[in-house]
Amino acid sequence: MRFLVTGCAGFIGSHLVDRLLNEGHEVLGVDNFSTGRAEFIAPAKVNPRFKFFEVDLLNPDVIEGILSAGIDRVFHLAANADVRDGLKHPQKDFEQNTLVTINVLEAMRKTGVKRIIFSSTGSVYGEAPVIPTPENCPFPVQTSLYGASKIAAEGAISSYVEGYGFQAVVLRFVSVLGERYSHGHVIDFVRQLLVKPDELIVLGDGRQRKSYIHVADCVEGILQAHRRTWPKRFEVVNLGTDEFITVFQSIEAISREMRLQPRVLFGGGDRGWPGDNPFILLDCSKMRATGWKTTISIRDAVQMTTRFLMKNRWLMEERKSS
Amino acid sequence: MRFLVTGCAGFIGSHLVDRLLNEGHEVLGVDNFSTGRAEFIAPAKVNPRFKFFEVDLLNPDVIEGILSAGIDRVFHLAANADVRDGLKHPQKDFEQNTLVTINVLEAMRKTGVKRIIFSSTGSVYGEAPVIPTPENCPFPVQTSLYGASKIAAEGAISSYVEGYGFQAVVLRFVSVLGERYSHGHVIDFVRQLLVKPDELIVLGDGRQRKSYIHVADCVEGILQAHRRTWPKRFEVVNLGTDEFITVFQSIEAISREMRLQPRVLFGGGDRGWPGDNPFILLDCSKMRATGWKTTISIRDAVQMTTRFLMKNRWLMEERKSS
Repeated sequence: MRFLVTGCAGFIGSHLVDRLLNEGHEVLGVDNFSTGRAEFIAPAKVNPRFKFFEVDLLNPDVIEGILSAGIDRVFHLAANADVRDGLKHPQKDFEQNTLVTINVLEAMRKTGVKRIIFSSTGSVYGEAPVIPTPENCPFPVQTSLYGASKIAAEGAISSYVEGYGFQAVVLRFVSVLGERYSHGHVIDFVRQLLVKPDELIVLGDGRQRKSYIHVADCVEGILQAHRRTWPKRFEVVNLGTDEFITVFQSIEAISREMRLQPRVLFGGGDRGWPGDNPFILLDCSKMRATGWKTTISIRDAVQMTTRFLMKNRWLMEERKSS
Repeated sequence: MRFLVTGCAGFIGSHLVDRLLNEGHEVLGVDNFSTGRAEFIAPAKVNPRFKFFEVDLLNPDVIEGILSAGIDRVFHLAANADVRDGLKHPQKDFEQNTLVTINVLEAMRKTGVKRIIFSSTGSVYGEAPVIPTPENCPFPVQTSLYGASKIAAEGAISSYVEGYGFQAVVLRFVSVLGERYSHGHVIDFVRQLLVKPDELIVLGDGRQRKSYIHVADCVEGILQAHRRTWPKRFEVVNLGTDEFITVFQSIEAISREMRLQPRVLFGGGDRGWPGDNPFILLDCSKMRATGWKTTISIRDAVQMTTRFLMKNRWLMEERKSS
């Protein structure tokens, strides 16, 4: 089959591309390198079944041209995934996550491509009123522009399912760890400890409890969502683990991997930044009912991520922001 | 006090302006006349406490200039309220409802204005999983771009409450009827009957059940939300009636008012258009607990709206779409 992967040079996207190529499929990939990395698709680029397009999805015509090649399904992973700094550039989430999704949907409609898998986020639950949080928990209050922009994109997709006969699976991920990981708390801590090995400054009080998933389990979940025949034309499915880790425990795992024993200074308060969620844990029984399960614990995932970052210090150098 | 009303020349906005002026306040109003009408603010314009700005809120600088006059609260009503035709121009809802809201929030932040009342919509409940639908019903699936763009705007607002200490009330309206009404099923039916008095073509099967509110009750609800001290800095409140009306009954009320007995042809299906919701009824107990209640029945509101349209046929002439 032939697939389009948007955000193909991103953390999750590049792993998905590798897996799809590995299974013998043809993959068209697009990325604008706003957060994606050329290095991540270097392995794919030598495969003749992979074709890469460096384009900005804010330009709707470009994507239409690519889709007219004939595509069995779009994996729409392109996004601005910076939850924490949403308030620094309020329009960015909506442009990159909502408007880009609408552009992709419009291009799909015009070219007759009707199947899409979308990477949404557990952030749409805000401070979830029920934990573990099922897909149909009480209507949450959005607490981040990121979550709000993603819920808007989900809505656009379901409008197209309703209006144009699309078929869609929306996956609400927890945060993802593993090889090619390039933003989030592990990189923040590793970066700090490389500069100052005996001291770590941490936002919040260290008690925030978060659920993470390793990218290998995440990509297997995406493929499972793709292979399965779902009962409804529009399905929302959580993708996470049954466990959580505190920031404390995460620091311990990172320090152990780096063979350091830093003094830890906490910024205080029960959350790391405005809109930070002190407790994230998704109810993933819908996804597990498909036979999918996680294979890597969060603790192992944190250590593997630390190891990866130590070997790929170039990822921790500041990039010029666009 | 001094207020800013966005969408001040719109159906609800212009009534709100009249009420605020009537109570002795100063009102700054902005509108781009995309759906607003100069005629609706003609009464306000002769009042020296009203100042009108014809501006497009997609331009963030303009709104900042206006807000720097010192404003006690923003009533942000400007919106693209065309639920039905969302799929015809998919970016419009997000530009007019989401990005404009972000621009207003940013301008408020920069000028230190922190209190906002926002007109959201019962459409955010999609095909509500619980009826009557309370604010915290199970997380709904969005079925319209309009609803999706409004839920995104709600999210942006709550992000600003969380991140910048704003205080906000989000009102989720049902559809509104009454004087200055200018789009929706009543105008569609009246327009048809004026052209062809013996025949009415109706989308769907006529059994769709909808809740409406008269604009006088709606504006009183907005003012009540404004006057009340709410327990939380971010509150979501439904604003509707406890009753509903079927399309059948609505046709009967319109026909009676017009003294016609048209043959009615139904397009068929249980909904009028993709994303149409066959049953809308909000649980408004949170709003009623403030002492507010509706004073005009839906049937009366339909007849009053019909009467208004018959006297204001200019409203039914096609406008050039932008």
